[in-house]
Amino acid sequence: MNDSTNADHTIQLGFIGLGRMGLNMVERLQKAGIGCVVFDTNSEACIAATKSGAETAISLNDLVNKLALPRAVWLMLPTAVVDKVLTVLTPLLSAGDVVIDGGNSHYVADLRRAASLATRQIYYLDVGVSGGVWGRERGYCQMIGGPDAAYQRLEPVFRTLAPGVEAATRSSGRSGEPTPAEHGYLHCGPNGAGHFVKMVHNGIEYGLMAAYAEGLNILHQANAGNVRQEINAETAPLEHPARYQYDFPLNDVVELWRRGSVIGSWLLDLTAIEMNEDMTLSRYTGRVSDSGEGRWAALAAIEEGVPVPVLAAALFGRFTSRGHDEFADKVMSAMRHGFGGHDEKTAPDDK
Amino acid sequence: MNDSTNADHTIQLGFIGLGRMGLNMVERLQKAGIGCVVFDTNSEACIAATKSGAETAISLNDLVNKLALPRAVWLMLPTAVVDKVLTVLTPLLSAGDVVIDGGNSHYVADLRRAASLATRQIYYLDVGVSGGVWGRERGYCQMIGGPDAAYQRLEPVFRTLAPGVEAATRSSGRSGEPTPAEHGYLHCGPNGAGHFVKMVHNGIEYGLMAAYAEGLNILHQANAGNVRQEINAETAPLEHPARYQYDFPLNDVVELWRRGSVIGSWLLDLTAIEMNEDMTLSRYTGRVSDSGEGRWAALAAIEEGVPVPVLAAALFGRFTSRGHDEFADKVMSAMRHGFGGHDEKTAPDDK
Amino acid sequence: MNDSTNADHTIQLGFIGLGRMGLNMVERLQKAGIGCVVFDTNSEACIAATKSGAETAISLNDLVNKLALPRAVWLMLPTAVVDKVLTVLTPLLSAGDVVIDGGNSHYVADLRRAASLATRQIYYLDVGVSGGVWGRERGYCQMIGGPDAAYQRLEPVFRTLAPGVEAATRSSGRSGEPTPAEHGYLHCGPNGAGHFVKMVHNGIEYGLMAAYAEGLNILHQANAGNVRQEINAETAPLEHPARYQYDFPLNDVVELWRRGSVIGSWLLDLTAIEMNEDMTLSRYTGRVSDSGEGRWAALAAIEEGVPVPVLAAALFGRFTSRGHDEFADKVMSAMRHGFGGHDEKTAPDDK
Amino acid sequence: MNDSTNADHTIQLGFIGLGRMGLNMVERLQKAGIGCVVFDTNSEACIAATKSGAETAISLNDLVNKLALPRAVWLMLPTAVVDKVLTVLTPLLSAGDVVIDGGNSHYVADLRRAASLATRQIYYLDVGVSGGVWGRERGYCQMIGGPDAAYQRLEPVFRTLAPGVEAATRSSGRSGEPTPAEHGYLHCGPNGAGHFVKMVHNGIEYGLMAAYAEGLNILHQANAGNVRQEINAETAPLEHPARYQYDFPLNDVVELWRRGSVIGSWLLDLTAIEMNEDMTLSRYTGRVSDSGEGRWAALAAIEEGVPVPVLAAALFGRFTSRGHDEFADKVMSAMRHGFGGHDEKTAPDDK
Repeated sequence: MNDSTNADHTIQLGFIGLGRMGLNMVERLQKAGIGCVVFDTNSEACIAATKSGAETAISLNDLVNKLALPRAVWLMLPTAVVDKVLTVLTPLLSAGDVVIDGGNSHYVADLRRAASLATRQIYYLDVGVSGGVWGRERGYCQMIGGPDAAYQRLEPVFRTLAPGVEAATRSSGRSGEPTPAEHGYLHCGPNGAGHFVKMVHNGIEYGLMAAYAEGLNILHQANAGNVRQEINAETAPLEHPARYQYDFPLNDVVELWRRGSVIGSWLLDLTAIEMNEDMTLSRYTGRVSDSGEGRWAALAAIEEGVPVPVLAAALFGRFTSRGHDEFADKVMSAMRHGFGGHDEKTAPDDK
Repeated sequence: MNDSTNADHTIQLGFIGLGRMGLNMVERLQKAGIGCVVFDTNSEACIAATKSGAETAISLNDLVNKLALPRAVWLMLPTAVVDKVLTVLTPLLSAGDVVIDGGNSHYVADLRRAASLATRQIYYLDVGVSGGVWGRERGYCQMIGGPDAAYQRLEPVFRTLAPGVEAATRSSGRSGEPTPAEHGYLHCGPNGAGHFVKMVHNGIEYGLMAAYAEGLNILHQANAGNVRQEINAETAPLEHPARYQYDFPLNDVVELWRRGSVIGSWLLDLTAIEMNEDMTLSRYTGRVSDSGEGRWAALAAIEEGVPVPVLAAALFGRFTSRGHDEFADKVMSAMRHGFGGHDEKTAPDDK
Repeated sequence: MNDSTNADHTIQLGFIGLGRMGLNMVERLQKAGIGCVVFDTNSEACIAATKSGAETAISLNDLVNKLALPRAVWLMLPTAVVDKVLTVLTPLLSAGDVVIDGGNSHYVADLRRAASLATRQIYYLDVGVSGGVWGRERGYCQMIGGPDAAYQRLEPVFRTLAPGVEAATRSSGRSGEPTPAEHGYLHCGPNGAGHFVKMVHNGIEYGLMAAYAEGLNILHQANAGNVRQEINAETAPLEHPARYQYDFPLNDVVELWRRGSVIGSWLLDLTAIEMNEDMTLSRYTGRVSDSGEGRWAALAAIEEGVPVPVLAAALFGRFTSRGHDEFADKVMSAMRHGFGGHDEKTAPDDK
Repeated sequence: MNDSTNADHTIQLGFIGLGRMGLNMVERLQKAGIGCVVFDTNSEACIAATKSGAETAISLNDLVNKLALPRAVWLMLPTAVVDKVLTVLTPLLSAGDVVIDGGNSHYVADLRRAASLATRQIYYLDVGVSGGVWGRERGYCQMIGGPDAAYQRLEPVFRTLAPGVEAATRSSGRSGEPTPAEHGYLHCGPNGAGHFVKMVHNGIEYGLMAAYAEGLNILHQANAGNVRQEINAETAPLEHPARYQYDFPLNDVVELWRRGSVIGSWLLDLTAIEMNEDMTLSRYTGRVSDSGEGRWAALAAIEEGVPVPVLAAALFGRFTSRGHDEFADKVMSAMRHGFGGHDEKTAPDDK
């Protein structure tokens, strides 16, 4: 955190949406002396925000009135409600105000909103925010799109929210005054650029997660040679059962890879913590949600003509984890029945 | 069928394994005048075979004794038991005899068996057979590997089992006396070549099946826009519900594609039959077996350094249909919990 | 073809676009007695059309004037110019007229066009057409979306263009008067439904093609064991060179699979013809175009939340065949240099 | 590094193979007081090793003679030469000696070697080592398989080579005396276990690298909307060129993601360094080697029946980067010619 960024306490921010991330961000801002006027339909969240010194508004109108001109209002909302809030909020704002969407909007929506707000001389900034529940302490990585003037006005906010230079060792080849990117925020380009970069970030995240998950699954089933198998025409026997007799201590393996290996990462750090609680992960069922960005990243790649086999496979794996492959699987079973008279097997499985 | 191929009725074949395919093959051979001496541990199958004129043996020893020299013995067995049968059978055979493995063996096993049998001057032919339960009427496509001499001796058998030239229109560019390939059997090369080609054939088959299955799944879920969705930070709303309001008559669509389209195929013909029975395929659960060749095809590709993203994706889809992705999915849920505090969603799903 | 469908010669069709497919379609229609008034900016194509009895128009205006009310105008144009032509054409048409888009439009464009034309009481039908250059003789598979009234008026045209019932054996489970689907055309649903089904059809097509292509590539490189390999820390030796010593006659293998195998298809028939000309396919470079539908199918799947790993892999393979993976590959080389000091290898390759 | 681990300087290690990694490892060991007797056919590497205090042997025989009983000999060799060296080395060793293979051997080879050496009462340890050229300073992550007795005897060596506890923050849920895994080395199980875990580690590594590479490629081509496109029937126009007008500063984006984002990792750190040198990566051609482990990981997954779509896609991407998709692409071009008369496009491309 960069405590000096708002020493004169003159920056003021409206903040709408005090969910899991929003509340933490307000606390981080307040702690650095940036005064927030907050609003959320959940009054408990509002009360929590006041504990960090934030001022609560009882309505969007109230929030707007409590902010000095030119205003800056940060939205931290589910994608699906941003436009609804903007419909109410926009008429309340004035020329010169800035709206920041810090949620997970599709960058195409940013292009539309920015054009619409520009007709009222209201600035729009799209800010992709990464960091999750750890951000309050660790800081937030921010990918920013929009007009220079608005970006510059809000830069103290971004710098406060950012992790700061010391959050990582300096890259070889970087010298002099650290750039914003080295603080953990970046003006990526015109409107849409922020959420575009965030979209790709999340697409990568899906790929990274799936890579670890698949690898750990290979280790998890490395004792397949100990399982007895059925013998029939539709089932291939495991050819080398003696090669699959391992019982790996997955929590230790994950811990091991955190030090000195090529695959160390923050996601691996988190996995180690989770696996220390329960190596079998039995408290999870394996239904993996996807929140939009991974889809949009794949869509953008397809429109650009860029091959993304890994990112797409990771995305499809999530769909499949929720059972969306079912009909396709039935079609294949039907075909197998059609040409070979094969009935579906039940259990135990032909590993 | 080519009724003239065995006009003198001198060819005799030992046949071990009267399962789903074996029994049909014996019937096709007997009908064409090729006398079979059959053996199976299932006595009902043996009785069925006698109805087509085949002679039944009560043991492997009996079978060998009932065949004139030089013998030819065709194995039509589950992969996992071929070596067990060969252990008993081989000492009973004589130099100059031929063993044909018509099952779904790995071609690497062929290399080993051929070398072993060669030390006793026994020939080995590996024959990949495609055709399924339809083969008795439609004929069997046969991919053959092994020594020329043995191939030539057995050619009347292959020709009898093959569908025959008339099973497809002649390809432009083919003229003169039809080649064996045009009859539906081919000497692909030395030992292993037959099952290698069959292995790749099945790899392709998995890919084709998955392609149809995925496409039909897109159509099946083309009314996703009619499903109400939850609004929260982890779920992206369907952006254009109005675009997904179709209820497609899948049985008619599949039927339609059989005529004049680029994607007409025998697998599509079978799918049309299945869908005419029940368009929803509700009698299937969607657990799709894999019988080895698809795996081996992927293994061979990887060893050769050949990219097979489609064949591998089809193979992995089968593993996943049987739940083998579960632990990987739990890892991803654990990571999501780790960085975002996300709990797993239950139902309804975030389409 | 169904010669009786227009015995009274009263159906008349405007036809815009005489490219590779359009000209063939006009010839098939004229031969069946459906009179066409054609227009194309390419006068040679117009002259060719007159040979089949079609009447030529010198402008869109002329074409419209030569058609009796209510008119039906079939567009067979590159996707990118359909809207341009409609801009000129629409004001010339009258309430009750029908516009048919038989090209490869995105179904989302259909929704927009249908709504726009409906404000003038002009009907719009979207028709996905499959069959390629073979359609004139073989007939065209047609997937149709739009209002019932328009569909019914045009049904004789669809039936004439369709391959007809005899183009395939009747599916078990089908009886009575053959349905339109069994003739090779189908009213799939409201507007967009036709191109939606065609989009999925082409997505499947990409998957099928890639499945065959990958399998043949495994066979093509099955002699990898004969290639000498470099020994160094970055290159894994081929572990079992003796297993990869095959030189397969690919043209014969493809021919073989056409009879009796599970993977017989029309695409395989075409491959056999191509391979008979030159088994090495040396006249091709391997840059594979994609014309939009495969992308749209993947986009639709992603929006629906349907996993399509095979279709997407096939699509990405086409992007990659045109070099669009290049920057990604450079990133990976850079990373390898970063952690291991690895320089890129040139040739010969580590198979 | 853990300087205290060998305070009595009694541990002595034979070390064969002074390549990129081996030499660094010797230096790290010598610095901690573990005396190495080294051998390499490259005399320059031997001379370099002596600078760190290592003793040079002029032959394997000499090396063995210079070691006190019971000996420990560490091999750090290309996979392809390990067995050759063992053929010469093994007869020189005595019962109770330990051979450590620290290279990238296939774990199946470990099983064979361990069994063979065990007949002479020689211990075998398989140690997967990660860390690359950075390991000398950063330490080496070590995954160890083999008998307890040998592992325990060598533990001071492993601890010296390991990064040490302080190389990462301690995971929540870990307390008390740090385990070996927290130091950066782990006895994963019996023989083969070490290289099995390393194999999976590298499989994951391929997946992670591809995920970043694909994401950066999407950003790299985010200005696709500025490129003019051809209009024809085979090419879909970019539907929304206005959405692809971004010129992203990739070096800054990569730097940005290093702080506070979910996708921070050591691979990303390295990418930032590489991109600071040249954002376009023009010094690379994009031919990406694979050194075996990624293949073996995929093979193991397939044998286990575990779906690894991401890891396999990453592997296939490497094959493709070296042109191994060429024949498959030609097959697809041939098919397109066959059904549509399509000629291959040259340039410019249909993005």
